[in-house]
Amino acid sequence: MEHVTLNWKGGMQFDAQVGEHTIVLDAPEELGGMNLGVRPKPLLLVALAGCTGMDVASLARKMRVEFDKIEIEADAEQSDEVPSVYTSMTLKYRFEGKDIDPSKPLKIVGLSQERYCGVANMLRQAAPVAFEVYLNGVRIDR
Amino acid sequence: MEHVTLNWKGGMQFDAQVGEHTIVLDAPEELGGMNLGVRPKPLLLVALAGCTGMDVASLARKMRVEFDKIEIEADAEQSDEVPSVYTSMTLKYRFEGKDIDPSKPLKIVGLSQERYCGVANMLRQAAPVAFEVYLNGVRIDR
Repeated sequence: MEHVTLNWKGGMQFDAQVGEHTIVLDAPEELGGMNLGVRPKPLLLVALAGCTGMDVASLARKMRVEFDKIEIEADAEQSDEVPSVYTSMTLKYRFEGKDIDPSKPLKIVGLSQERYCGVANMLRQAAPVAFEVYLNGVRIDR
Repeated sequence: MEHVTLNWKGGMQFDAQVGEHTIVLDAPEELGGMNLGVRPKPLLLVALAGCTGMDVASLARKMRVEFDKIEIEADAEQSDEVPSVYTSMTLKYRFEGKDIDPSKPLKIVGLSQERYCGVANMLRQAAPVAFEVYLNGVRIDR
């Protein structure tokens, strides 16, 4: 079972305990907070990019693909009505490295998206999750 | 549009940039990490509890309900297969305060769950989200 605990610190601030780690949540000033921490909703994107990112790091090691740099951007479009929900999400995988066959990062991302990433599997129930793959600045997934 | 960026720091560690805030992600040692930060998946629960927590803090202020303490626990059961996904989630709202009519926290939680909380709305597409409400240690939602 997974478990987290949040404690209210006054105003809009909550401290979240996740195992031995703490994350400070707060609203920006225009929403009544003091901007002392992250807003809750983008944590869905951090969970999504982090889940697939760890798949990628793990699969790259197993497949002996040596990346110099891995950056993953996650974006979401959201609805205007209440409650505001994500209507689509996009992951941009940006790999850098020398002498890397483009088929390798494509295979790694595909395995994460289709088989391993539980967070992507869950969030796809709420809205589509698209992805783009770049190697040394060149898009390679189309 | 919402936007986050993750940068790989080696091993299983990623630093997530969310606006001006940084969250460190890492895997525990038994999964090949160094436990320098949170795992990605429980961030879904932090997003869920934080979203409804901020609704609660905001509605309590509007309704002039003065809580001394608000704690929100979020749990999830998850599947064993790959990918591992949440099969159910439970929020436990624990309110403390003097001379509070139990109808107030019940109304506040109901408004968040039914109307305001976008994260709950999204995650309910993936698995059921139950909730329990406690006031000064006594369960009041049944």
